[in-house]
Amino acid sequence: MPREILLNAFDMNCVGHIQHGLWRHPRDQTTRYLDLSYWMELARTLEAGLFDGLFLADVLGVYDVYGGDADAAIRGAVQVPVNDPMLLVPAMAACTTHLGFGVTANLLYEAPYPFARRMSTLDHLTRGRVGWNIVTGYLDSAARAAGFARQPAHDDRYDLADEYMQLVYRLWQHSWSDDAVLADRSSGVYADPAQVKAVHHHGKQYQVDAIHLSEPSPQRTPLLYQAGSSPRGRRFAATHAECVFLNGQAEAGVRLIVDDIRGQAQAMGRSPDDIRIFLGATIITGASAAEAQEKFQDYRQYVSSEAALVHAAASLGVDLARFDLDEPVDASASQAITSNVEALTRSQGPGWTKRKLLQQMMLGSRQVPMVGSGEQIADALIRWTEKAGVDGFNLSRTVAPECWSDVSRFVVPELQARGAFKTRYRQGSLREKLFGQTRLPASHPAMRAGEA
Amino acid sequence: MPREILLNAFDMNCVGHIQHGLWRHPRDQTTRYLDLSYWMELARTLEAGLFDGLFLADVLGVYDVYGGDADAAIRGAVQVPVNDPMLLVPAMAACTTHLGFGVTANLLYEAPYPFARRMSTLDHLTRGRVGWNIVTGYLDSAARAAGFARQPAHDDRYDLADEYMQLVYRLWQHSWSDDAVLADRSSGVYADPAQVKAVHHHGKQYQVDAIHLSEPSPQRTPLLYQAGSSPRGRRFAATHAECVFLNGQAEAGVRLIVDDIRGQAQAMGRSPDDIRIFLGATIITGASAAEAQEKFQDYRQYVSSEAALVHAAASLGVDLARFDLDEPVDASASQAITSNVEALTRSQGPGWTKRKLLQQMMLGSRQVPMVGSGEQIADALIRWTEKAGVDGFNLSRTVAPECWSDVSRFVVPELQARGAFKTRYRQGSLREKLFGQTRLPASHPAMRAGEA
Repeated sequence: MPREILLNAFDMNCVGHIQHGLWRHPRDQTTRYLDLSYWMELARTLEAGLFDGLFLADVLGVYDVYGGDADAAIRGAVQVPVNDPMLLVPAMAACTTHLGFGVTANLLYEAPYPFARRMSTLDHLTRGRVGWNIVTGYLDSAARAAGFARQPAHDDRYDLADEYMQLVYRLWQHSWSDDAVLADRSSGVYADPAQVKAVHHHGKQYQVDAIHLSEPSPQRTPLLYQAGSSPRGRRFAATHAECVFLNGQAEAGVRLIVDDIRGQAQAMGRSPDDIRIFLGATIITGASAAEAQEKFQDYRQYVSSEAALVHAAASLGVDLARFDLDEPVDASASQAITSNVEALTRSQGPGWTKRKLLQQMMLGSRQVPMVGSGEQIADALIRWTEKAGVDGFNLSRTVAPECWSDVSRFVVPELQARGAFKTRYRQGSLREKLFGQTRLPASHPAMRAGEA
Repeated sequence: MPREILLNAFDMNCVGHIQHGLWRHPRDQTTRYLDLSYWMELARTLEAGLFDGLFLADVLGVYDVYGGDADAAIRGAVQVPVNDPMLLVPAMAACTTHLGFGVTANLLYEAPYPFARRMSTLDHLTRGRVGWNIVTGYLDSAARAAGFARQPAHDDRYDLADEYMQLVYRLWQHSWSDDAVLADRSSGVYADPAQVKAVHHHGKQYQVDAIHLSEPSPQRTPLLYQAGSSPRGRRFAATHAECVFLNGQAEAGVRLIVDDIRGQAQAMGRSPDDIRIFLGATIITGASAAEAQEKFQDYRQYVSSEAALVHAAASLGVDLARFDLDEPVDASASQAITSNVEALTRSQGPGWTKRKLLQQMMLGSRQVPMVGSGEQIADALIRWTEKAGVDGFNLSRTVAPECWSDVSRFVVPELQARGAFKTRYRQGSLREKLFGQTRLPASHPAMRAGEA
């Protein structure tokens, strides 16, 4: 009997997210991203389809590596313009009951004290359905927007993130006790001050002397997502993350990372089952394999090669505009993002060209789509969970919103028939649905953050 | 014919806001503040009553002057716990069409680049119904939460705020031209990069080199509220504010401030009509004068003297717990907030005591309630607009939500009968409803911020 597979929709408060150019498709509705109604319809569609969550990406800079400026990104709507993701959640929560919301926020640019309150507020308003995708960013353009010449070095960002986590854990977990709020109209005592402690944090980067401003929310600490695949990133994930988001094309390679993260978590005293791992995936499906292939060919006509290269250039830190189609790309530029360049060179071989890269970017990104009938896709997903040890998938949008309803119509029933997908939502908070309890387990470092 | 009076509901994402202790009243529902449904019901109630806006206060610290700690504030729910106000807006916008939303945000603790995007996002999602109440805070406890020993000095905060405004104006008004977004599916051009400019701001406090991340929202700059009554605060208001929020008990004293702000604005090349001035007020009304008085006596039973003193102590910067009821309060403490202490001494006379102060705080704050039939209240409001030159009122909550529906049922029809209140909403954005145009006028400094 296969495990139950988890499914998130992976989206962003902008026009072009992962698969670039598809907003031009006549049925695509993502140019409605400025309307609340668009997002509320999306949330209802996902909940009707029993999706576990909506995972919202974010970025606080622009992709300005390609051609040395942001022009091509702006032209092709490559994650710009991009609006704040958090502000979508309250309206979507108001029209759903079970759907979870994972929100990306870059801790480098969020002062911890008001940020902790924002997440607590969201956890209250959603009744415990919120998660935080912890990112430290990778764009110098974001650093320049925040007044720095460049961002801190890769590993330094994670050190800073470790301190940030300690601080927000103390605010979320250790400032208000569960018994603090009495809301007693007869005595006039709303909360018992003896049950509310100030947090005194004096670290290398942050100084806080204050009580948390929010009373305890259902989950206290939001469900923690993270997406780091570098060695330092994996260590951070193994330490803090409850859900890890990975990308990868080969089962064996993904399996190595999955085992490494679970192993490191276990070495730190956590249970390997305390971590759910989601693989990034793109699905194109239909009533039959032929219909899915037809849809794929239809969608492909709308792909923008330039937009795809803009995103790839930023991910690699290599200005791909400087190379001809068939010229081997020299990726040794000083700003190159080593781990991403190495991964690409492993898959493409040395001396790869833009033409080879574009052939791989069939739908406008390097994520190879799964194309097939619901049966075929269900088999492929189950195979991934068995071979690579992942628990679920973060599904990229293609032509929205039909890409979401297609998964619900064609793939979910096949998964259910195989016992690999829930037939209704579990009760309770997002963490309770995923892990059986609303609060973090005792083995999580957040629970010990109050001792410092 | 009197002018049309503007009415905002003045509220906060917490249990006790201005009139302290009233959450204990059996009909009060503010302990539901953690539920989205509470806020959505409130928004619908206000829109049904033709309120112009919901004005949400905020504070990022605790009131810890009284007794030297936050215990009494926590006990009496004196603006603590307090959740983020901005996150309430999307859900309330989703269930209303016309109601405006004024959100308080302290610019000292909000990095300008992500903050500008948050406000643009809200302006998009509300279709131009958002305002920003610009505050720089007055609590050392907030500074300590942000890692500073204390907050910057009063006038320095305003200098810093002036620079902050220049920067966000450039992001909101001057980064994207109105013609930038084409969203052209056939050419694949979402936006024309030639119409999107990077902002290069290198000031004393802030450094930003970046394009604004959001495409132009309906109002671009949110409607600007401000509430400064000190000389430096008034100069800031005259420079930037479109709506000014004042408190005061005497018509003549308020008139002086009103005339000063309008005069200063005019001297800077703005029109005195470009500013709407709201007076803080508390209304208790009913079907008759007797019913209103009865309600007032009923409400009074639930006032908390301690909670009222906690708030007053923080506003004055004087630890009122150190004085006996009939002992003259020595307000010369080093942390005293001079302008507030002076105002109180003017109204109470020198040698005032806590007993005298408590007698004035009839409903749990120093704001004296207007109690009467709809007719009486309507007459009082019109008189205030005529004598003090204010345009409208920010109404504090007493027992919610009945305090809002009481105003709609009893006061609004009387105002309408006198031609002093609209009978239906105007079309358009919040700024268009108040000033007849959705964008700032050419005389506002935001319009010239791009020249620097």
